[in-house]
Amino acid sequence: MKKWNIAVIPGDGIGPEVVSEGIKVLQAVSELNPAFAFDCAYFPWGCEYYAKHGKMMDDHGMEQLRAHDAIYLGAVGYPGVPDHISLWGLLLKIRKEFDQYVNIRPIRLLSGAPCPLRDAAKEDIDMLFIRENSEGEYAGAGDWLFRGKPEEVVLQTGVFSRKGTERIIRYAYETARSLNKLLTSVSKGNALNYSMVFWDQVFEEVGKEYPDVKTYSYLVDAASMFMIKQPQRFEVVVTSNLFGDILTDLGAAISGGLGLAAGANLNPDRRYPSMFEPIHGSAPDIAGRGIANPLAAIWSVSQMLDFFGYPDWAEAVLRAIEQVLTDRDTLTPDLGGTAATAEVGDRVVAALTGLVRRHELKPVQ
Amino acid sequence: MKKWNIAVIPGDGIGPEVVSEGIKVLQAVSELNPAFAFDCAYFPWGCEYYAKHGKMMDDHGMEQLRAHDAIYLGAVGYPGVPDHISLWGLLLKIRKEFDQYVNIRPIRLLSGAPCPLRDAAKEDIDMLFIRENSEGEYAGAGDWLFRGKPEEVVLQTGVFSRKGTERIIRYAYETARSLNKLLTSVSKGNALNYSMVFWDQVFEEVGKEYPDVKTYSYLVDAASMFMIKQPQRFEVVVTSNLFGDILTDLGAAISGGLGLAAGANLNPDRRYPSMFEPIHGSAPDIAGRGIANPLAAIWSVSQMLDFFGYPDWAEAVLRAIEQVLTDRDTLTPDLGGTAATAEVGDRVVAALTGLVRRHELKPVQ
Ligand SMILES: CC(C)[C@H](C(=O)O)[C@@H](O)C(=O)O
Ligand SMILES: CC(C)[C@H](C(=O)O)[C@@H](O)C(=O)O
Repeated sequence: MKKWNIAVIPGDGIGPEVVSEGIKVLQAVSELNPAFAFDCAYFPWGCEYYAKHGKMMDDHGMEQLRAHDAIYLGAVGYPGVPDHISLWGLLLKIRKEFDQYVNIRPIRLLSGAPCPLRDAAKEDIDMLFIRENSEGEYAGAGDWLFRGKPEEVVLQTGVFSRKGTERIIRYAYETARSLNKLLTSVSKGNALNYSMVFWDQVFEEVGKEYPDVKTYSYLVDAASMFMIKQPQRFEVVVTSNLFGDILTDLGAAISGGLGLAAGANLNPDRRYPSMFEPIHGSAPDIAGRGIANPLAAIWSVSQMLDFFGYPDWAEAVLRAIEQVLTDRDTLTPDLGGTAATAEVGDRVVAALTGLVRRHELKPVQ
Repeated sequence: MKKWNIAVIPGDGIGPEVVSEGIKVLQAVSELNPAFAFDCAYFPWGCEYYAKHGKMMDDHGMEQLRAHDAIYLGAVGYPGVPDHISLWGLLLKIRKEFDQYVNIRPIRLLSGAPCPLRDAAKEDIDMLFIRENSEGEYAGAGDWLFRGKPEEVVLQTGVFSRKGTERIIRYAYETARSLNKLLTSVSKGNALNYSMVFWDQVFEEVGKEYPDVKTYSYLVDAASMFMIKQPQRFEVVVTSNLFGDILTDLGAAISGGLGLAAGANLNPDRRYPSMFEPIHGSAPDIAGRGIANPLAAIWSVSQMLDFFGYPDWAEAVLRAIEQVLTDRDTLTPDLGGTAATAEVGDRVVAALTGLVRRHELKPVQ
């Protein structure tokens, strides 16, 4: 039987705290499901490592990671270490070098999760964001001219390649088709007169191969409004790196907050490991106090199980999270409770175990 | 006495319908306030004009506009005319060539306006967005290489000049100081490693001259979340062209919808005319039916009065709008009513007249 090799990078701030709960849940799955086994290797990289070694990861870090099936990342970033070091030296480096060109972010209002929208029902907020994750606005290309002079000018160039644009859009069409859902593209062709005109063109071209997939195309400004006023418009959404960043944080805001926001960075052809992470960041203000919400990290584990080929177990973890949210007796302060991080993890494990014991879940996937 | 010269471009779709209500209100102000007089010149430009003449405005259009104190614009854009023609040939052209580098968008939840947020009170949503309006992501700079080949790549370059960045940030500090409010900058330095690092640097540098102004700096993704979860965080906000576009539409979503969203494109040194417009666009689906909401267009008139130097009258127009919203017997369908566009305009005029007659407003500004 395959034993999955997982590289764990707990990282900074609350990263280690939430990651241990995710591993706890993974452990429970392996005990409940005889068809699933995994090994973990821990990598102590991040800002503390940087403080000691002057680099965010080992020199051979990427090779070491490469030997694994997946990467499980807590959070990166800490006050004092500039972002261009912490992020470009770890998170963004891995996303790019491992060609994790698909960033999947489920925006789903689970039962029991708080929603700030007056009129939104649970069914109204159920989207799958597919964000381009390897190039576009985040290509890191630019120039800084005449620094310090009156004629100083700074250029930031978004890079949209045919290959990069086509593959993410194709991935989105495939996903929408397989789920039998609407596909919405978000762009801004009326103002970004090169990149987004190209994006719209590719979206239309590739669409010809998917006549069965119903599509919409929104401007990013309109999309951000619709997310609030009519979230039910969205099912599968494909968008660029920057727009995906903004809209998925907005999505987190309407589906329970960052404490419930998970993300998967996928290399779909599986040449390189994919990476799973809660998207909340390192939250230095509450780090080390054992009160961080681990549910996003646990949701990322659900995404990992799905990617490994255990969709029923992925769904079961979500149902366990939902049960904890609904019971409301073990929640962290961000969700109005007083529980500790580890208690929440324990409760998810208990809920998951209950589901299996009561035969609400098939024993092997 | 100065007579203000206003160039009116009703434009496309619902533009003409809402603009007449704005002019109606301006007319009422001039009747109520002996210190205010204006003249209008109408310019029939837009997509219909384009269909007849193959251009969005007259060849000497910019010169003709230049002779005016302000431009009052309805909306631009119609299905069939590509955006790069309709917008870059009129709206964006005027913004850029008249150096209207400040885009002011009030996000204010008026009494009676609907808000989709469960827990937000009227006082929580009261922001003034100051959006860079002349360059940045909308510079229109880019390249389209190897078109149609596998190595095709499309570049979109944001252009952030020292002059352009400094002047908008300075304008924002001045505004925050004069209103005695917090100033928040929204950027994305952790991923946009040239432009937004520069933005943050300028924000800090200029800030040294305004030690009395309290500031915050948010990432655009975090900001979009806070807009929903804690809108009370924001008072005066300064941001780039693209981020301002997205966040102000989000702002519209939480403060009554596009039917209430106004915008001013200012050339603060008054070398060129400034332009006032509702930001809802041409809404072709409801054009010509007399049911478009004119309140955003009327709010823009309030901004124009403020810019001309009649702040009390600007505020009075807002209070009249608020009264109409609160009474709720004359609202257009987007706000749940059955009234026609013109009836709403009439009601605003009646409310304004009432305010003056009851001496709730000083007779001259
Ligand atoms: C940390 C930052 C660079 C990152 C991004 O913008 O991609 C984060 O916000 C995210 O969304 O994963
Ligand atoms: C029409 C479009 C180019 C414009 C913009 O994005 O600036 C509009 O959305 C706005 O916000 O005024």
